[in-house]
Amino acid sequence: MAYRLSELAGLTGSKLVGDDCLIAAIAEISSAGAGDITFISNAKYAEHLADTHASALIIKAELLADCSVSALVTDDPRLVYAKVANLLYPPVNVVPGISVDAVVSESAYIDETASVAAGAVIATGVRIGAGTQIGAGCVIEDNAIIGANTRINSNVTVGYSCEIGHDCIIHSGVVLGADGFGFVKDGDAFLKIPQIGSVQIGDNVEIGANTTIDRGALENTVIGDGVKLDNQIQIAHGVTIGANTVISSATAIAGSTHIGSGCLIGGLVGIVEHLNITDNVVITGRTMVTRSITQSGSYSSSTPMDTTENWRKNSARFRRLDELARRVAKLEKNK
Amino acid sequence: MAYRLSELAGLTGSKLVGDDCLIAAIAEISSAGAGDITFISNAKYAEHLADTHASALIIKAELLADCSVSALVTDDPRLVYAKVANLLYPPVNVVPGISVDAVVSESAYIDETASVAAGAVIATGVRIGAGTQIGAGCVIEDNAIIGANTRINSNVTVGYSCEIGHDCIIHSGVVLGADGFGFVKDGDAFLKIPQIGSVQIGDNVEIGANTTIDRGALENTVIGDGVKLDNQIQIAHGVTIGANTVISSATAIAGSTHIGSGCLIGGLVGIVEHLNITDNVVITGRTMVTRSITQSGSYSSSTPMDTTENWRKNSARFRRLDELARRVAKLEKNK
Amino acid sequence: MAYRLSELAGLTGSKLVGDDCLIAAIAEISSAGAGDITFISNAKYAEHLADTHASALIIKAELLADCSVSALVTDDPRLVYAKVANLLYPPVNVVPGISVDAVVSESAYIDETASVAAGAVIATGVRIGAGTQIGAGCVIEDNAIIGANTRINSNVTVGYSCEIGHDCIIHSGVVLGADGFGFVKDGDAFLKIPQIGSVQIGDNVEIGANTTIDRGALENTVIGDGVKLDNQIQIAHGVTIGANTVISSATAIAGSTHIGSGCLIGGLVGIVEHLNITDNVVITGRTMVTRSITQSGSYSSSTPMDTTENWRKNSARFRRLDELARRVAKLEKNK
Repeated sequence: MAYRLSELAGLTGSKLVGDDCLIAAIAEISSAGAGDITFISNAKYAEHLADTHASALIIKAELLADCSVSALVTDDPRLVYAKVANLLYPPVNVVPGISVDAVVSESAYIDETASVAAGAVIATGVRIGAGTQIGAGCVIEDNAIIGANTRINSNVTVGYSCEIGHDCIIHSGVVLGADGFGFVKDGDAFLKIPQIGSVQIGDNVEIGANTTIDRGALENTVIGDGVKLDNQIQIAHGVTIGANTVISSATAIAGSTHIGSGCLIGGLVGIVEHLNITDNVVITGRTMVTRSITQSGSYSSSTPMDTTENWRKNSARFRRLDELARRVAKLEKNK
Repeated sequence: MAYRLSELAGLTGSKLVGDDCLIAAIAEISSAGAGDITFISNAKYAEHLADTHASALIIKAELLADCSVSALVTDDPRLVYAKVANLLYPPVNVVPGISVDAVVSESAYIDETASVAAGAVIATGVRIGAGTQIGAGCVIEDNAIIGANTRINSNVTVGYSCEIGHDCIIHSGVVLGADGFGFVKDGDAFLKIPQIGSVQIGDNVEIGANTTIDRGALENTVIGDGVKLDNQIQIAHGVTIGANTVISSATAIAGSTHIGSGCLIGGLVGIVEHLNITDNVVITGRTMVTRSITQSGSYSSSTPMDTTENWRKNSARFRRLDELARRVAKLEKNK
Repeated sequence: MAYRLSELAGLTGSKLVGDDCLIAAIAEISSAGAGDITFISNAKYAEHLADTHASALIIKAELLADCSVSALVTDDPRLVYAKVANLLYPPVNVVPGISVDAVVSESAYIDETASVAAGAVIATGVRIGAGTQIGAGCVIEDNAIIGANTRINSNVTVGYSCEIGHDCIIHSGVVLGADGFGFVKDGDAFLKIPQIGSVQIGDNVEIGANTTIDRGALENTVIGDGVKLDNQIQIAHGVTIGANTVISSATAIAGSTHIGSGCLIGGLVGIVEHLNITDNVVITGRTMVTRSITQSGSYSSSTPMDTTENWRKNSARFRRLDELARRVAKLEKNK
């Protein structure tokens, strides 16, 4: 899909400086050629401004002087780049309809503009909204409800009675609505606590490959509008996540923890159960969160990488850190 | 499914205090209404005792004085709650039989009381016991054996020759019996070591969504009776886990490590290869286990969360901790 | 498949010492019996040399004096063991052909010596090479290309336009080519950045169960020849990994990071975005990598396990480590 640069300026709220031209693709500044547009958000790439072969650049006004080609000028080149990319690379329009190789319950309601791919299984009582795509190999269990214009990629499992909103993207291998991990000791063994809640996903949510979100024990697990979850994240039963919170890969959140809106949570973070994290909290990668966070701000744990040789020495001292502190206190007292 | 409160008392070994009534559901104490039962395990919720709208409470005798409604009295409210929940919310009875949209090898044996859902593939030589359910989209590879009354949810993969016991629950996306990760250096490249062991899962085991358990290199990987595994756990080749051990999400256990029975292992724990962990060990979340544990007790590692600003300062010092300790020793010597 | 010991010597480049015999299986030294071969790489198992019931051992020359049975003598017993195992346990030959229960697009090209199992879905424009096996329940999306003699196990998802080389093994539950995690802030919400790159997997690559590799944002995500990835690894968009690098389970690598060849990366490692890791780097388990590594060598972070009681005391001191260091400096100044 190609656009004239002037059209892109209008559609993205940026300003065209230079000649109009036809733009067909996005490329990295180093490999861009005729018909390509690229962007510079970082002054350190400014050296490429003079010798790029791109047809156009997305830049801040301050770089215009060095720019040898046409430009879309904006205060936020990365945002305009994303808007341009969404225009040049729209989601593929799948042909509506149900594959003859899908298995669809007679009691399921599937909007006539939705599509269901081969090998998908749609169980009883399921409802699927307009323009929604169900990928190959997906299993949509009993009474699940999926809104409009949502894309469920291949081999996804949506558990019974789970609800997904509009304009979501659920990537392959995701499992929504498995039982929460709840047991109570009964002698030496453990008795399962039935997990009778569900999972509710808002609108404009994206969920990465192989991420798992468990159903609630009593109350539902709730993912707010605009939440973005990366791959291989684990969300336990009864967790709630506020609107527009973003979580990177391989993070695990334990049961009944409540996370506010507008949070940025890094990868490999662990958050224990029954905590409250307020709005607009940043948690850096690999942090272990063991207490509630009541003030917005940035939080961290973990220790810095070193050569294994140095790390061994320092790490061994960690095991006697309390003793070391006592020795320092004694020195201070005796000095 | 509704019960009279007196019936629930009898079936759960608790004592009815107050009027009998009909109980149809479980709810949180704050949202419970007529026909609901709820429980209080924690004295901090006792404030709700007087004004709950639930029809009945599950409580310890010491809270009876403040209780305004009927009660099931017990020393372990959480256990009685779980028993009540299992009565009120029994697993759904799937209709026995093989879906016409499943693919089942002629050489597979499937008990006539078992069920196989649409889109499942059952390979040659597989044996499936009485009352067992195979979910939609599952692949049960050659010669796998699954016991009675086990529930395999959607999109599970059971590798060839793996064995699963009775009364297990295997959640969606689980992969049992992928090859263990075994290679030997051969020049610059690595030669694969064939993984000729299998995976053996005991009875009453629950395995969470997207957890992976690899087949053994030579000896089998063995999961004991009553083990409960949360989501996204990785169990490597040749690991053995003793009865009734419980492991939280996103923990990874490396090859040939042996874990005892009755252990409680937190989330995001890492356990390196060839270790022995004795019985009744507690390992807190995010711990890195690099040596065997021969005494039962509780073990931990990781560092505490702080504001990123404070953490940066402290973390930087960690890289010179050995030097700091030497400086303290020198001060002590010179004082 | 059985071999004469003399044949195994010839085929593995080792030296037969003792009588020839028929070898049918591999076993652990403690359980080996007649017809079995076993290996000793570690002198600590030498005690078993005299009383093994194995028919043959794979050992170094220095242990020959204590060996009571036939031997294959080599400087690298583990490598010879792997070669023997590959001979005794060759991959099962699947019958070529497309299952009548697979769904294959008319526009897909599938070599006549390849096999496609029941329940697999092969989309438009896919190309599958000679001798390659596609497992049950796999989804191979539009225009994906898979080379020769590659084995894709059950329930794998290969995203559109991804490419996989020859002689690879992709384990169950793997997702290749989900969208990278790229968003740009647009007011309070986040706008998705289309992920227009692909995933390119080299030859002789093995990818463990439930591992995810995202497609690139602009440039492809590239996995080099001979790379071995364990289970539940997350590789983000635009990552490149050099030849013969080996990565253990549950490691997560963030976007646009470049990793050299011949690296050994442990389990549960985190590597942040936009880093460069040079060749032949060892990163021990659970390390958090937050800066580029320009020198080969071994790198670590994390803290050592302790009893929870001791750990609590030491860990509390970590939060005041900077203060402690300042106090020591003050003592030094005042002494």
